[in-house]
Amino acid sequence: MRKSIATVCLSGGLVEKLHACAAAGFDGVEIFEPDLVAGESSPEEIRALAARLGLSIDLYQPLRDIEGVEESQFADNLRRAEAKFALMKRLGADTVLVCSNVATATVDSDEVSAAQLRALGDLAGRYGVRIAFEALAWGRYVDDYRRAWRIVRLADHPRVGLCLDSFHILSRGHDSAQIASIPAEKIFFLQLADAPALSMDVLSWSRHHRLFPGEGSFDLVTFLTHVLRTGYAGPLSLEVFNDTFRQTDTRRTATHALRSLAWLEDQAARRLGTGAAEFLTEAKAPTGFDFVEIRAEDTDGIEVMLGQLGFSFRGVHRSRPARLWTSGTARIVLDEHNARDTEPLLTAVGLDVPDPLSSAARAHQLMAPPVHRRTYASGPGVRAVAAPEGTEIHLCAEGASWAGEFTGGATTEPIPASTPGPGPAAVTHVDHVNLAPSWADFDESVLFYTTVLDLDAAPRTEVPSPHGLVRSQVMHTPDGAVRLPLNMAPSGAATGCGRAGLPQHIAFACPDVTGLARAARDRGLRLLPVPANYYDDLAARFGLAAQDIARLRESNVLYDRDAHGHFLHFYTRTTGTVFLEFVQRVDGYAGFGADNAPIRLAAQSLTSRL
Amino acid sequence: MRKSIATVCLSGGLVEKLHACAAAGFDGVEIFEPDLVAGESSPEEIRALAARLGLSIDLYQPLRDIEGVEESQFADNLRRAEAKFALMKRLGADTVLVCSNVATATVDSDEVSAAQLRALGDLAGRYGVRIAFEALAWGRYVDDYRRAWRIVRLADHPRVGLCLDSFHILSRGHDSAQIASIPAEKIFFLQLADAPALSMDVLSWSRHHRLFPGEGSFDLVTFLTHVLRTGYAGPLSLEVFNDTFRQTDTRRTATHALRSLAWLEDQAARRLGTGAAEFLTEAKAPTGFDFVEIRAEDTDGIEVMLGQLGFSFRGVHRSRPARLWTSGTARIVLDEHNARDTEPLLTAVGLDVPDPLSSAARAHQLMAPPVHRRTYASGPGVRAVAAPEGTEIHLCAEGASWAGEFTGGATTEPIPASTPGPGPAAVTHVDHVNLAPSWADFDESVLFYTTVLDLDAAPRTEVPSPHGLVRSQVMHTPDGAVRLPLNMAPSGAATGCGRAGLPQHIAFACPDVTGLARAARDRGLRLLPVPANYYDDLAARFGLAAQDIARLRESNVLYDRDAHGHFLHFYTRTTGTVFLEFVQRVDGYAGFGADNAPIRLAAQSLTSRL
Repeated sequence: MRKSIATVCLSGGLVEKLHACAAAGFDGVEIFEPDLVAGESSPEEIRALAARLGLSIDLYQPLRDIEGVEESQFADNLRRAEAKFALMKRLGADTVLVCSNVATATVDSDEVSAAQLRALGDLAGRYGVRIAFEALAWGRYVDDYRRAWRIVRLADHPRVGLCLDSFHILSRGHDSAQIASIPAEKIFFLQLADAPALSMDVLSWSRHHRLFPGEGSFDLVTFLTHVLRTGYAGPLSLEVFNDTFRQTDTRRTATHALRSLAWLEDQAARRLGTGAAEFLTEAKAPTGFDFVEIRAEDTDGIEVMLGQLGFSFRGVHRSRPARLWTSGTARIVLDEHNARDTEPLLTAVGLDVPDPLSSAARAHQLMAPPVHRRTYASGPGVRAVAAPEGTEIHLCAEGASWAGEFTGGATTEPIPASTPGPGPAAVTHVDHVNLAPSWADFDESVLFYTTVLDLDAAPRTEVPSPHGLVRSQVMHTPDGAVRLPLNMAPSGAATGCGRAGLPQHIAFACPDVTGLARAARDRGLRLLPVPANYYDDLAARFGLAAQDIARLRESNVLYDRDAHGHFLHFYTRTTGTVFLEFVQRVDGYAGFGADNAPIRLAAQSLTSRL
Repeated sequence: MRKSIATVCLSGGLVEKLHACAAAGFDGVEIFEPDLVAGESSPEEIRALAARLGLSIDLYQPLRDIEGVEESQFADNLRRAEAKFALMKRLGADTVLVCSNVATATVDSDEVSAAQLRALGDLAGRYGVRIAFEALAWGRYVDDYRRAWRIVRLADHPRVGLCLDSFHILSRGHDSAQIASIPAEKIFFLQLADAPALSMDVLSWSRHHRLFPGEGSFDLVTFLTHVLRTGYAGPLSLEVFNDTFRQTDTRRTATHALRSLAWLEDQAARRLGTGAAEFLTEAKAPTGFDFVEIRAEDTDGIEVMLGQLGFSFRGVHRSRPARLWTSGTARIVLDEHNARDTEPLLTAVGLDVPDPLSSAARAHQLMAPPVHRRTYASGPGVRAVAAPEGTEIHLCAEGASWAGEFTGGATTEPIPASTPGPGPAAVTHVDHVNLAPSWADFDESVLFYTTVLDLDAAPRTEVPSPHGLVRSQVMHTPDGAVRLPLNMAPSGAATGCGRAGLPQHIAFACPDVTGLARAARDRGLRLLPVPANYYDDLAARFGLAAQDIARLRESNVLYDRDAHGHFLHFYTRTTGTVFLEFVQRVDGYAGFGADNAPIRLAAQSLTSRL
């Protein structure tokens, strides 16, 4: 279907917005009136620019406070509307959004509203314009699409129809199933927006916190299927008021927006079983971590640390200054290529996917920027894309043997005496990788991981740090084989630690973290210190035995418990913008030690930059 | 009274927070448990540090989810509480905050809660601790201070009393007058927080949006008088969870916090007529603008502009590289002193005050940092303070003749032919000065202008710009003689325009701005361009006559209307981080053309940096 977006979704001026929408691949736009009014281009120029860019102007919006008024007021409203119809003719827009009256309504009558819309429709007809009437969730009298539909039916005018907006319907909890009974030809326009579950007045919620489809908690797939069942064939159009998207890069946000719409359309079409030929390629979710890469001008410090933590050196890459270290299935690539002046930085995550070709095709269809590499090939050519926060995500075939590209290490040799054997204290696999999108990237990262990689998004949480609240949201597969917590630094914090403002980390699973911590310490590793007060509090909170507390304390190991089981973990200090975590999940503990995150953040603040 | 603050109000680690509280001048602190737990200092070290700094530890907080539970759960809660009482003994804290149960309560009974608090009181007694029980606004069963008071009365234990928190009482709209009937000795602690009027769930409101007293919409003066009427003599303590204050400079925020408390105590004491000897000095609000200063390495460009706008050059300062320009009562000082590499920047505002000595004394008592100058003396010595956003506020005697320090200008000479005479198009006075606090300064600026200068704060608004929403709030005297709108740049916007992120401006009143705009243009001034689309919209909105629109359009003059009258205004382009506005208020128009601000912001974005 044709895809459109309201210019109010984006930052910048109107000309910049039109260029960005066209570059992203939208078919049309809704022009938000203040964008036109504040811009220097004439309506004729905008019309010509849109035409050259291949964008239709699908809607001009909004006309406010038109109906439900006394006759004298309505006469003035008609005068105002006529000026806008004349403008629309210059602009080449044929549909106008008329919102239900918020400010000036004094007549609570379907009949009066219908008669006034009918008069408006007569006037609009003279300019070739049609009226899409929308019930705002906070309209004074008309705040429900079902009432708006009664009024449109009463108006009974070919130029008067409905605009449906998912936010106004779903925010009020109105049943969208009844949309299916509206004739498609009376649905003049469809606006789509998601939103997080928030308890606040609906106006503030709408004006500041809308999200693109797939990023919030509305069931937009069901909503859209109800609309499509009517036979609606107009554009799918985004109208997302969001304080962050008003500030982010115009072109990037336009692409981000179109990705959300492509995903939503696909989901709804699959549900309806229509348009199979145009479906996005299905790609099964990743099944595990293949490798994680850290880049630095000098990776020696990390190699010493990995040795102390029982990892084995597996060799140097044949053609690139990169070195491989492993423990169990965990593979860490340390890359010094193209890393001048780079402090250690988490640059790439390899994920095992059942079918890399399908995953790459889907990523491409969803506009993920491809990344080109000459190495770590997992089959013919490299399949990697850049996630919004900057991580390179490599789509690896399970069991691919790229490790053979690394030579000279311990792969086929006995493990040196200075590293522990594959005993109980050895790392078995990567448990999770913690990424740190900036405030500008966060929502887009959530959408990327859910739509491109089919991960689930856990609810958002917040963690206090000495420098403000850190927003956190975990992306994961249902079985937990891949877990990617996203952490966002406080927006105003003086950052300066890597591109993302917060350090990132790799968490390794280990069946005996206390033993590993002790062994690493004995080999000279300085762990992230944990304050004694933490252990006193642990004793009070969980009633652990004194000797258990002593054992944790001696190893700087943190503890948590959930409904299933318990959790032990410790951290290295930060080097560059990377640190490592070692975790032990007992009896199906499913969390990440969130209650311990403030302890970690405070300790990091004391021992390094945040 | 003694003044205290919860460590959760501030950013940083616990040691840093204690130093900041002592440096600001607080008498005590509430220690928020997570601050202690995450810190590396032992309780004994914190106790010793607080003692050395002269801070008492007035409260340890919080113990959660204690009462209203089954007996087996309660036994575990007692164990947990005892560990905390032992910790408090080490810390030297004798009062603990027990919040009403949110998570684990299963027994909705005053008698059970009272019996459990009584048992807790017995245990606390053994450690020299007393229990301050507080009804959280979102407590599962106990969410009203009146119910908490019933439970405390039933508990009837010398170590069990109440903690009153203004947020939990006022956010729910509970009547605080009934506090007056509680015996003072049963009010163990008093927590104070303000908050803006927001419609959202009370937990989110409380955890993210509390403000210091005087910054929000709660009537804390009345609340505090109700508490003080009981005879309460414990500390006045701030507990303010705020996402911004968690990120701002620790020491500065501590001073900001203490200022709010000093103001609140004074207001309540005056209301009650007690403690007159300790009142803050009363200082009458300013009566007008005395001067505005712009600093730059080279002020030539501004002088040309002022000349084009009909200002007269009045001379050079006798001892400083500063020049005075005036029109009517508007006086602009252009200062090149100490301005190397400085682009034009609004640095100082002189306000006429009825009694500069009192105003300076009050500012000093409210911890406004003094500013020292050797010039523009308005009487013996200079009285100036730095506002939080950086503006120097000079407290000037009305009618002071410092202008005589400038010599060689047109003061006593006929006005040159190249400037307009004092005709209808000449500026008569400064209408308002628009300042631009950063996100970190905004709330503190509001508090500064209301408490130090006795200005009123209008409600907050938001203005869309091409780079995000600009928060705006007008500080003003009731008669409008002094108006200081504060504008805050979008938090995440790439700023870089001066220290504040947005340009600042001076608005001059003029009885014929259209004439002035035309005259200035004829003298070669390039005004901020206004798009033609704006004038088309103006015609549609207000139904102005075509020739009126043409006249406005030809002069780049903007138009607005309110319930009283109408408003005409135009802008210069930005130079450095300063621009000028010229306004004409007709028939008592009281606003600032807020609907035109997006037009201005868009035009500025096109013609310069935001």
